[in-house]
Amino acid sequence: MALTVVGSIAFDAVRTPFGERERMLGGSASHFALAASFFTDVRVVGPVGDDFGPEEIGVLESHGVSTTDIEHVEGGRTFFWRGHYDHDMNIAHTDDTQLNVFAEFVPKLCEENRNAEMLFLGNIQPDLQRQVREEADGARFVALDSMNLWIETAREPLLDVIGMIDCVLLNDAELRMLTDEPNLVVAAHEIMKHGPTIVVVKRGEYGAALFTGNDTFAMPALPIAEVRDPTGAGDSFAGGFLGFLDGLGAHSPSNGELRQAMVRGSAMASFNVEDFGTERVRRLERDEIDARVTAFKDLTHF
Amino acid sequence: MALTVVGSIAFDAVRTPFGERERMLGGSASHFALAASFFTDVRVVGPVGDDFGPEEIGVLESHGVSTTDIEHVEGGRTFFWRGHYDHDMNIAHTDDTQLNVFAEFVPKLCEENRNAEMLFLGNIQPDLQRQVREEADGARFVALDSMNLWIETAREPLLDVIGMIDCVLLNDAELRMLTDEPNLVVAAHEIMKHGPTIVVVKRGEYGAALFTGNDTFAMPALPIAEVRDPTGAGDSFAGGFLGFLDGLGAHSPSNGELRQAMVRGSAMASFNVEDFGTERVRRLERDEIDARVTAFKDLTHF
Repeated sequence: MALTVVGSIAFDAVRTPFGERERMLGGSASHFALAASFFTDVRVVGPVGDDFGPEEIGVLESHGVSTTDIEHVEGGRTFFWRGHYDHDMNIAHTDDTQLNVFAEFVPKLCEENRNAEMLFLGNIQPDLQRQVREEADGARFVALDSMNLWIETAREPLLDVIGMIDCVLLNDAELRMLTDEPNLVVAAHEIMKHGPTIVVVKRGEYGAALFTGNDTFAMPALPIAEVRDPTGAGDSFAGGFLGFLDGLGAHSPSNGELRQAMVRGSAMASFNVEDFGTERVRRLERDEIDARVTAFKDLTHF
Repeated sequence: MALTVVGSIAFDAVRTPFGERERMLGGSASHFALAASFFTDVRVVGPVGDDFGPEEIGVLESHGVSTTDIEHVEGGRTFFWRGHYDHDMNIAHTDDTQLNVFAEFVPKLCEENRNAEMLFLGNIQPDLQRQVREEADGARFVALDSMNLWIETAREPLLDVIGMIDCVLLNDAELRMLTDEPNLVVAAHEIMKHGPTIVVVKRGEYGAALFTGNDTFAMPALPIAEVRDPTGAGDSFAGGFLGFLDGLGAHSPSNGELRQAMVRGSAMASFNVEDFGTERVRRLERDEIDARVTAFKDLTHF
């Protein structure tokens, strides 16, 4: 069991109808690692600046996350995102993005990360994802997330790295954009032609769907009366999904294992949105996850 | 067992990337009645013009649908809708709407319809819905559908009739618009304050959700590789949902019965979109519905 994630480590400033935070731990790798830490050993790869201190490192380490490959860039500043959500919490409005230390980031993996059995390439520039994938040649299962920016500006590099991995996680709009195919079933199987055998479609408040060569699974999101901040929900989903598989030692997962992983991903996303940034997941207890798995069964079975 | 529906009976002209039809049977009552006919005895109330002939009546009657209260307006023309779908089949573009005989429609129910145990008020002007609801005073379970047009132009009449019924079926955008509340859970419970004990939220390609005072159920739609024409899917959903309940004799349905009804509604909607207009449902066999219920279990259980 060893799950390595490369992605952004950030400070986020977020305002929603339920409040605001001027500076909190964020970024795809942070959300992913905290969610995955409930299921397996997680190691984070990514750059931070001088402003990233013991407090932030402590949040990760107190959840058993290895921070050895969090690279401290002297004189640099940590990646920063500012955004807000209005009445409709499904739409994130970006007010400011400062790449800072991420602009010059060249991933360097220690031996343990090169040998990790499972690897998650968080949403970063596709050429960086490919470099990490090539360096981590011990990985038996590799998954990737991306976003509209890279689909528009780095489509070929993105398709290159997709050809080197096992599992793609995208939201439905991204999947449609990448394949130029509006039908999700067709789009998912289009992606599989590039190499991956598993396609996970994230649908925000509507849930998620899983496509493999011989299985289709879909689940709604848990209806939650007070969504306080959806930032990071997709990464928490990915963390729950891959963390669960790695914890099982399922590096060639069966359809049944993948379905169970989808439920853990959905559970972690549902916790994520209940409070700002990582606040809810940070205070989460393991038995709450088990209760939520039961809640998903109650929600969907007939 | 007796289920009466009032709603539009129409001719539709539809173009999608998969083909087009210049004139086919459509309208909320037609789609609803055909879907419900697989589960119970259905009776249609609504006006048609001289152009509505034995062929269209035959489609309904061959499915056992009672057409006694389909009112033939001498010299009139049947309601007509023309629309198209582009690449994204989730968005209907309306090109033409001709109310025709519907402009002057005053519902008149025969004794059998006044005494129907279950009543569906399809998407028509809310004052007409209220008149039918008042006339059908034998109904033990009444459900209603509506649309953005009436929410914008006849909000108070719509809330009045909602206060007189048991179950509301709306899509998520309509529910948000009607309650001015973006969170679906909160919006559904807001509707219940007006009287209904059951709120069904239709989510198109994402599925549907059910809220009662003490239960929440949600299900994804069946992923379908070739959606040929989504017109009428919402009405087919309602027909499967209410037809199943009426067939059970469940006029005070339990949560478990409502969940089973949600699956039948989803099944009928999934068939609806597989071909133009009512074409798929017209040639449907009962055992295909049973197989699709199993397909939904395979899709969602873990």
